[in-house]
Amino acid sequence: MSLASLQAAVQRNEEGIDLALKILAQRFGERFSTSAAVREQHGHTTTWLPNQAPDGVVFARSTEEVADVVQVCAQHKVPIIPFGTGSSLEGHVNAPAGGISVDVSQMNRVLQVNAEDLDCVVEAGVTRTQLNEYLRDTGLFFPIDPGADASLGGMAATRASGTNAVRYGTMKDVVLALTVVTADGRIVRTGGRAKKTAAGYDLTRLMVGSEGTLGIITEVTLRLYGIPEAVSGGVCPFPDLESACNAVITTIQSGLPVARIELLDANQIRACNAYSKLELQETPTLFLEFHGTQAGVREQSEIFGEIARDSGGGEFVWATKAEDRTRLWKARHDAYWAALGLRPGCKGVSTDVCVPISRLAECIDETYKDVEANGLLAPLVGHVGDGNFHVLVLVDVDNPQEIAKTEAFIERLNWRAIEMGGTCTGEHGVGQGKMKYLAREHGAGLDMMAAIKKALDPDNILNPGKIVRLD
Amino acid sequence: MSLASLQAAVQRNEEGIDLALKILAQRFGERFSTSAAVREQHGHTTTWLPNQAPDGVVFARSTEEVADVVQVCAQHKVPIIPFGTGSSLEGHVNAPAGGISVDVSQMNRVLQVNAEDLDCVVEAGVTRTQLNEYLRDTGLFFPIDPGADASLGGMAATRASGTNAVRYGTMKDVVLALTVVTADGRIVRTGGRAKKTAAGYDLTRLMVGSEGTLGIITEVTLRLYGIPEAVSGGVCPFPDLESACNAVITTIQSGLPVARIELLDANQIRACNAYSKLELQETPTLFLEFHGTQAGVREQSEIFGEIARDSGGGEFVWATKAEDRTRLWKARHDAYWAALGLRPGCKGVSTDVCVPISRLAECIDETYKDVEANGLLAPLVGHVGDGNFHVLVLVDVDNPQEIAKTEAFIERLNWRAIEMGGTCTGEHGVGQGKMKYLAREHGAGLDMMAAIKKALDPDNILNPGKIVRLD
Repeated sequence: MSLASLQAAVQRNEEGIDLALKILAQRFGERFSTSAAVREQHGHTTTWLPNQAPDGVVFARSTEEVADVVQVCAQHKVPIIPFGTGSSLEGHVNAPAGGISVDVSQMNRVLQVNAEDLDCVVEAGVTRTQLNEYLRDTGLFFPIDPGADASLGGMAATRASGTNAVRYGTMKDVVLALTVVTADGRIVRTGGRAKKTAAGYDLTRLMVGSEGTLGIITEVTLRLYGIPEAVSGGVCPFPDLESACNAVITTIQSGLPVARIELLDANQIRACNAYSKLELQETPTLFLEFHGTQAGVREQSEIFGEIARDSGGGEFVWATKAEDRTRLWKARHDAYWAALGLRPGCKGVSTDVCVPISRLAECIDETYKDVEANGLLAPLVGHVGDGNFHVLVLVDVDNPQEIAKTEAFIERLNWRAIEMGGTCTGEHGVGQGKMKYLAREHGAGLDMMAAIKKALDPDNILNPGKIVRLD
Repeated sequence: MSLASLQAAVQRNEEGIDLALKILAQRFGERFSTSAAVREQHGHTTTWLPNQAPDGVVFARSTEEVADVVQVCAQHKVPIIPFGTGSSLEGHVNAPAGGISVDVSQMNRVLQVNAEDLDCVVEAGVTRTQLNEYLRDTGLFFPIDPGADASLGGMAATRASGTNAVRYGTMKDVVLALTVVTADGRIVRTGGRAKKTAAGYDLTRLMVGSEGTLGIITEVTLRLYGIPEAVSGGVCPFPDLESACNAVITTIQSGLPVARIELLDANQIRACNAYSKLELQETPTLFLEFHGTQAGVREQSEIFGEIARDSGGGEFVWATKAEDRTRLWKARHDAYWAALGLRPGCKGVSTDVCVPISRLAECIDETYKDVEANGLLAPLVGHVGDGNFHVLVLVDVDNPQEIAKTEAFIERLNWRAIEMGGTCTGEHGVGQGKMKYLAREHGAGLDMMAAIKKALDPDNILNPGKIVRLD
């Protein structure tokens, strides 16, 4: 996607921006920056979308401060782009029309842990590993795990999920309520702490996945889970992708409550062996984890072992020690970095389709053939229990032909998933990168989204140029 | 609530209604009715809210027909009120400004069962027992169970749940996608069949619980579950409500995956004994059910047995035979009718608060004291694993003093739950009956709801006078 096409989408309001910069500089002093380095770091920095830096960055420390910033920006019709850790992949933090980045990383307090209710309240800048470290002595944990150590506000904003989603769901399932600053600078609490409610429109789930375009998330109320009595897991090699997929499909259809079931193809295993010093057989491989009681975990893994054998899989290799398990999952989480090592100097462009599980093998097979036919290097990792997989295309961004070939491949992949009843994005979100797929995926639903956006942000100041385009 | 106050809320558009009636009569022939009996049956018929009949009823047979009706009504600015089985409790199907009831009970086809993806697509008029009968030979079932044999469209519209919600969640968790007719008569599909997606605003969950005020649900895509290998359950008596509540709280906090954990107080047990010919000890009692493997179910019930003993409970009485279990749960589902038998000639007014589980015992205790202090007869049943309970106040509706006392009691109960971080409605929805509680429960969030309503239904024709009032 070219910089010009992104910038053309939204006009800059120079006068308003100048005024807002002056007001915010005065109000926030050292916690406001217009330095080029800080601004650039707050634009998009991952994958190949161009960096579109904001005009200024406020480091907010409270919901009230975020509301202050929004009020200033609302008055002068200046864009506000929320920023957590900057780990988003689709240009969510870019400022195509300039404006103010509101960095919430200093809003990093865990406000409440209600162990007896299995919930907690955190500020938006708390990261998932920070929360789990905080919870360490409580016997509880927060399961959603997108790989990156993202902020929980950002994870809510993009409806993130990750390796544990097959068992624990996505952010839509674990966010109980949010505190949100609206486009006019008001503070809204979208729900209470009751486990269920039927009291009106589900503002919480409307905000989850809205990517900062309907409101700025400043606090998150999350469900927590008891740390399972027993955890076991390991890896299981397969001769080919099809047999691995079939094992996954049977596992899910049998209702086995796997906590994690991840597929890595041979290229990705080769990359992980090199990057994470593993010695796995370089063949399609499932990484698995089971949570439960001692007896339950044993039962689950025996059932999976049978399924794997029936699907033509090799011997399930147990990681019985906790440190071996940690090493495996660290390697899985480092898959992105490992893959980049397959082709030094390249950039990695991640795809994120998700299809009904019955179409998974077919979707992966067609995609694989497409990769080969186009001579791309594109390792595959997948949250396959959910029908979600990522192909990371390794691209020489100085080679326009390669870029064109990759863009065409990604388009075909996204259309393929949508045709199969799936989606162009299972967990990364839309941002700028996937806007062009939404019309076909949602049809008239996209008009409803635009109507909601217009109603809640009539001046289009909340993260403009993402998800829906207002004309 | 008086009829006058409800009717004052929305003005009738006599001219538009007359025109719409003529057009629809011509278009739908025998499937359109203006008979008093049919109209009255399509207004509110449960509890004490007054019946406000629509001006005409269309029995639609397809999404396209619903869209037709909406287009006619949109053109003439006439209210449209969707109707499934009429089992809602808060006046959801009333027509305070007249208009057309769209009865979807003839839209009762199961359109797809995708066993391999654990999902299905049904028309809005399919009821939950109809679906489960249809699924009987597939090894799958649909778990959400609000007691009444409601339509799945209605259950989605009110965000229903019920006895299984502690294990399987509510309608927000099991609806994958919807087909919805919008206020301008367009047909929108709110999602695909992928298990997760991050592709834009969560229209599905915005529609779930919107009670027909943002769109008319015509098809529902639902998650299904494998019938568990083993099911066991039974009843456990307790000397008082507090010890029963404590057993529930400990059960939930320990992470035990109970499928059902329901509390019935002594009055309700007495009512069930009489109505369902049971011989249970007339004391606060938990009804339980466990789902899993043979070994898992045994383990779960042993753990619960220990918790119950530690909480001062009596002996857990197993219903080992399937027919005994069915009889128990039939009695539980008939609790409403059983309770009415405690005071023949009265009406039952159900409350529906839900609080964080840590506040459950306190909320029930304060409520119980309030019942006693006011001399009300009000048996209690509760989906206590979710912190949700119903007090059914048995009222002589010819006694204004009793009505006043009951209304005041219900108000105190709802404020109490909201103060405790809970909600005035866990699963029944807002309808007309709970609108007055939303301002305190949601604060500025209620304005956001109104803005969304205005954006998606600018002429306020979709089930007007429910959830949010537009001025």
